Amino acid sequence: MSGKSQPLILVTNDDGMFAPGIRRLVEITRHMGEVIVVAPDSPQSAKGHAVTLSDPLRLNKVDVFEGVEAYECSGTPVDCVKLAKNVLLKHRRIDLCVSGINHGSNASINILYSGTISAAMEASIEGIDSIGFSLEDYSMKANFDPATPWIRSIIEHVLSNGMGDSRLLNVNIPHPSLGPIRGMKVCRQAEGRWEEEFVEGVDPRGEKFYWMTGNFATNDTGSETDISALREGYISIVPSHHDLTHHRTIPKLKSLEDIKPRL
Amino acid sequence: MSGKSQPLILVTNDDGMFAPGIRRLVEITRHMGEVIVVAPDSPQSAKGHAVTLSDPLRLNKVDVFEGVEAYECSGTPVDCVKLAKNVLLKHRRIDLCVSGINHGSNASINILYSGTISAAMEASIEGIDSIGFSLEDYSMKANFDPATPWIRSIIEHVLSNGMGDSRLLNVNIPHPSLGPIRGMKVCRQAEGRWEEEFVEGVDPRGEKFYWMTGNFATNDTGSETDISALREGYISIVPSHHDLTHHRTIPKLKSLEDIKPRL
Repeated sequence: MSGKSQPLILVTNDDGMFAPGIRRLVEITRHMGEVIVVAPDSPQSAKGHAVTLSDPLRLNKVDVFEGVEAYECSGTPVDCVKLAKNVLLKHRRIDLCVSGINHGSNASINILYSGTISAAMEASIEGIDSIGFSLEDYSMKANFDPATPWIRSIIEHVLSNGMGDSRLLNVNIPHPSLGPIRGMKVCRQAEGRWEEEFVEGVDPRGEKFYWMTGNFATNDTGSETDISALREGYISIVPSHHDLTHHRTIPKLKSLEDIKPRL
Repeated sequence: MSGKSQPLILVTNDDGMFAPGIRRLVEITRHMGEVIVVAPDSPQSAKGHAVTLSDPLRLNKVDVFEGVEAYECSGTPVDCVKLAKNVLLKHRRIDLCVSGINHGSNASINILYSGTISAAMEASIEGIDSIGFSLEDYSMKANFDPATPWIRSIIEHVLSNGMGDSRLLNVNIPHPSLGPIRGMKVCRQAEGRWEEEFVEGVDPRGEKFYWMTGNFATNDTGSETDISALREGYISIVPSHHDLTHHRTIPKLKSLEDIKPRL
């Protein structure tokens, strides 16, 4: 926190400046502190943790949210956070980064593919408390009203209390068709994967193409996962981080160190 | 393993089919089993776990490696693995995926940005034992000779013994200028981050741009990390996975579940 002054909150997403989800996040946060918005100038879903190294990046100040500074960025969601941190807010301390509200779930393995969560992850790597919000409804007409008071409460709680040793919360909100939100569960990421199919076609020039589609699948029957929380009508909150080490396997693989190759 | 028949090995990377690193990996693996290569048709460094949803993907069979089936793919490294698994090898079991050899380190936080490791990660999510190899030398003229017998030994070991509960090894090889490789360390991912600077410029049309550059920085003084192993001249092997849950924080954040927003 920045003492008596109001907190500085960075808002971003992967769907761009005109997605209803980011608009709602700005409406929620603008009463809590100083808000700055940096969002991609084109849809960046499923961009994962991609960054732009081989091309120049652009920042364009836009007048979208009354009284809130906002910039469109030509790069990925992670680029947005890097530019916000290192250019726009270079000499200031960012108190919180919120990303979303994504139109579609980022529970389970989707955390890896998600531009929304990768943006928040990038901020967390920079030591900034970060929260990614996603609603289990892919529609651009998704109803964010039932989720709004919960999102407000989570952000207020984190601004006041921090988030423990974690710097990143992956928050998913059940589909509005499941009925009223029953509460919140702090839980682990469910094991899961996408079962892809590729639709094959031939383009107007006679060339074959493949178009990715698929279904999310999980065999994880644990009761303390984000997927189980969502199915039961609860908001899932998964404290997350960027250490991908499979720690308990390290001692089991120590025998690799004994290998002496024929040089 | 596929019993008495020879193992099926998928080779990929993020630098494309003509990078010396993938050529070396094909040379190493072609004597160990049946090799199929699926690599991006353009450089895909730092693409992280991006996937292509909004565009068609192309696969072109190319004659690059004598006697080895090889395909260029128009997508990201993760797309390459998905197409290999779900189209080219749909009815076969892939025994091992090897990605690289990347020209440049993917130790520490670079695992998140790396297309090389994201490709291997994707295969591991599909239940395929996977190894990402990277050499601490960004040059396209990097010398892979000293690393070759070590890489061969690691792959042979994994084909014979598996990799414990892990499905993904992030293997980094010290810069050849450090002298002879001293051995291998099975270790954890070091804490670290990129300290970015953005070079500002004005393009020929008078528009401002920002171009990302920066330096890797770490304050992690642990002796059992990939960064410390590399500095000492050892190959680092980090067993990795896709569960990003910060498990020990879950109990500390349970108080979030008590929040009852004003609805």
